[in-house]
Amino acid sequence: MRVEIVAVGTELLLGQIADTNSQWLGEQLAAHGISSHFHQHVGDNHDRIVLAFRTALARSDAIIVCGGLGPTQDDITREAIADVMNVELERRDDMVQRISAMFASRHREMPANNLRQADVPRGGDVIEPVRGTAPGLICPVGNKVVYAVPGVPFEMTEMFERAILPDLQRRSGETATIRSRVLRTWGASESGLAEALADRFGELEGRGDVTIAFLASGIEGIKVRITARAGSSDDVSQLIAGEERTVRSIIEARFGDIIFGVDDETMEDAIAARLLARGLTLGVAESLTGGLIASRLVNVPGASTWFRGGVVSYASDVKFTLLGVTPGPVVAATAAQEMAEGVRRTVGSDVGLAITGVAGPQPQDGHAPGTVFVGWSLDDQSGSVEFRLPGDRPRVRSYGAISALDVLRRVLDERQ
Amino acid sequence: MRVEIVAVGTELLLGQIADTNSQWLGEQLAAHGISSHFHQHVGDNHDRIVLAFRTALARSDAIIVCGGLGPTQDDITREAIADVMNVELERRDDMVQRISAMFASRHREMPANNLRQADVPRGGDVIEPVRGTAPGLICPVGNKVVYAVPGVPFEMTEMFERAILPDLQRRSGETATIRSRVLRTWGASESGLAEALADRFGELEGRGDVTIAFLASGIEGIKVRITARAGSSDDVSQLIAGEERTVRSIIEARFGDIIFGVDDETMEDAIAARLLARGLTLGVAESLTGGLIASRLVNVPGASTWFRGGVVSYASDVKFTLLGVTPGPVVAATAAQEMAEGVRRTVGSDVGLAITGVAGPQPQDGHAPGTVFVGWSLDDQSGSVEFRLPGDRPRVRSYGAISALDVLRRVLDERQ
Repeated sequence: MRVEIVAVGTELLLGQIADTNSQWLGEQLAAHGISSHFHQHVGDNHDRIVLAFRTALARSDAIIVCGGLGPTQDDITREAIADVMNVELERRDDMVQRISAMFASRHREMPANNLRQADVPRGGDVIEPVRGTAPGLICPVGNKVVYAVPGVPFEMTEMFERAILPDLQRRSGETATIRSRVLRTWGASESGLAEALADRFGELEGRGDVTIAFLASGIEGIKVRITARAGSSDDVSQLIAGEERTVRSIIEARFGDIIFGVDDETMEDAIAARLLARGLTLGVAESLTGGLIASRLVNVPGASTWFRGGVVSYASDVKFTLLGVTPGPVVAATAAQEMAEGVRRTVGSDVGLAITGVAGPQPQDGHAPGTVFVGWSLDDQSGSVEFRLPGDRPRVRSYGAISALDVLRRVLDERQ
Repeated sequence: MRVEIVAVGTELLLGQIADTNSQWLGEQLAAHGISSHFHQHVGDNHDRIVLAFRTALARSDAIIVCGGLGPTQDDITREAIADVMNVELERRDDMVQRISAMFASRHREMPANNLRQADVPRGGDVIEPVRGTAPGLICPVGNKVVYAVPGVPFEMTEMFERAILPDLQRRSGETATIRSRVLRTWGASESGLAEALADRFGELEGRGDVTIAFLASGIEGIKVRITARAGSSDDVSQLIAGEERTVRSIIEARFGDIIFGVDDETMEDAIAARLLARGLTLGVAESLTGGLIASRLVNVPGASTWFRGGVVSYASDVKFTLLGVTPGPVVAATAAQEMAEGVRRTVGSDVGLAITGVAGPQPQDGHAPGTVFVGWSLDDQSGSVEFRLPGDRPRVRSYGAISALDVLRRVLDERQ
């Protein structure tokens, strides 16, 4: 059973609104083991909507149409479906009553064109509206089917769960469950990971129950997504757990400790967990990133228990006076280390993390743009790590922020 | 010239990521008067990508393909385009050199499969990558054309503006010049602006040479986009300048000084311009926003000439000890004001900006989540402004950051 989603609305083509409906529906279909190979956006134009439907019916078994069921003249999904079915629209008395009653109950006068929402292609069924006035539709086309739901997410989601999903499952006889787990890595390239996992890809090829995919997430690193499909929820969990072990061992053997989180865990979540576990507080001194690291850390709920604060020492002399950095070149390993030690004193934290570097476009202290030094200080130990980061100013900053957090993650793991 | 956007990636079908690329491209095409009647999403499957391309070429004049240009096994857009063109892939030596050099410059070893990015369908042209390693493609198919860009927005947008848009305009033979100007506002609702400009909308209706549109940009406020179309560049400039005067006067009469920038000017650009003009330096003290304000300010090129730095006083006692705030409630107008005065001393700046508040979900110091106090200090004057901001923790922080910058913008304008 292959389901194609067709989102109707000129505002989608013009980019005036984001198509969150297709994303939500895609997630739901996948979670229930129903394949969806194509999505389309089309504007409020009769001929083009009909063309989109015909295209979808030629390559998929079912269509879920979102939008164009409202009362106004540019809501023409009903007419387009009737056209594709090659039937007339019939005004359904029960729907006329229902819509009239809905307006009456809200003490609002009903504009006549609202009755257009009572029109149903002959041979089609109605999905009664419970959250809005627009009925949904279930319309057979040969041995295939067109579902239509309003574009309002609040109405669409309710109709999908109540009426469309059960109907789809009945038609498809699909009972499989599909679930995914994402391993989040920092420090390896997508191509490097792909090469390391190439053999595993080969082994999974054709098995059909487990797949691996990469999601490059820019400044958040590379995500490795494991997806499993099985008859029962337990079997899926077992498949995923087993594959996660395999993938982790391959990645760690090749790249070491680059997996910092699972699913929605961020790098700052990883830092928070380690600091909490050891009852340590953190202070951050930032030059290059200008507060980016601190602003990421405070997004972790409960950050106030372990995050003391930080200093944005953008001007060099602020590093000297406020952080006690030895006057001299400020893009240097020693400067980063002294910043980390200094911020511990300044904000009174157990741990210090610091970053300095060249955002570019001009070189500084004889260092090329992208040169970054991360300093750390913990107990009586401190150190620094040098990076060469790609990109323009914002990219160097973003990469610098997560690189610094990753340094701290490793320091906290290695220095118990 | 009808352009169809085809976004490639199984993660789009599974709803794991939102398709922001199609939305952005749709907005760009519309803004330049280029029609787009259909969008498609297709997964990382060769035959289905080819089918999506053939479908698009049958109903549109050009395709912009996003994604599938990476180095990994599931990046197969290049192969699919070659298939549709019915030609072979050729490995371009110049691209091999370029990609190898890019890895070398980052002191990283290049996995062999990265060279797949140097493959180009015979007869196709390369869009050289400047922000990533993946080249884009311009491939003629009969009298139509397929453009391919990486799915990474940061790389996609740059290639579209530099290479695709000009090529599209050349092919479309669009002789009229179309240009837009965006007025960026902070502090009014979209419906409020729409209401204020309703009459003007009516006057422009049917004229066809000038249009106004609203772009809600979330935490960046509401954008009012003026688009003009005329035979010559001078005529367009005149139309836009005239309409900008009209729209500005309407907005300012109704809402006052809420237009902070034009086109790509950010709120921090507006701050920078004012500080530079008066030769003033700035320091910021942040609690609620945890460094977000500072990190925005340092993104302005040349920020080091006017930005001294800041203090992220997340823990209350850091406010007392480092900023000299009078011990007591830290979510208060006086605290915000004292933070602004304190940071001037701490980082040695002419101007101080500070923010404190409740991100939620719990109340603090008897204040509800979303309660925010912004403090400022300039010469011998200082003050504070209270806000009630909507949303969850990240939203309150983001709104708080731009609200604070807007306070500073107005203070700098009013206190000469």
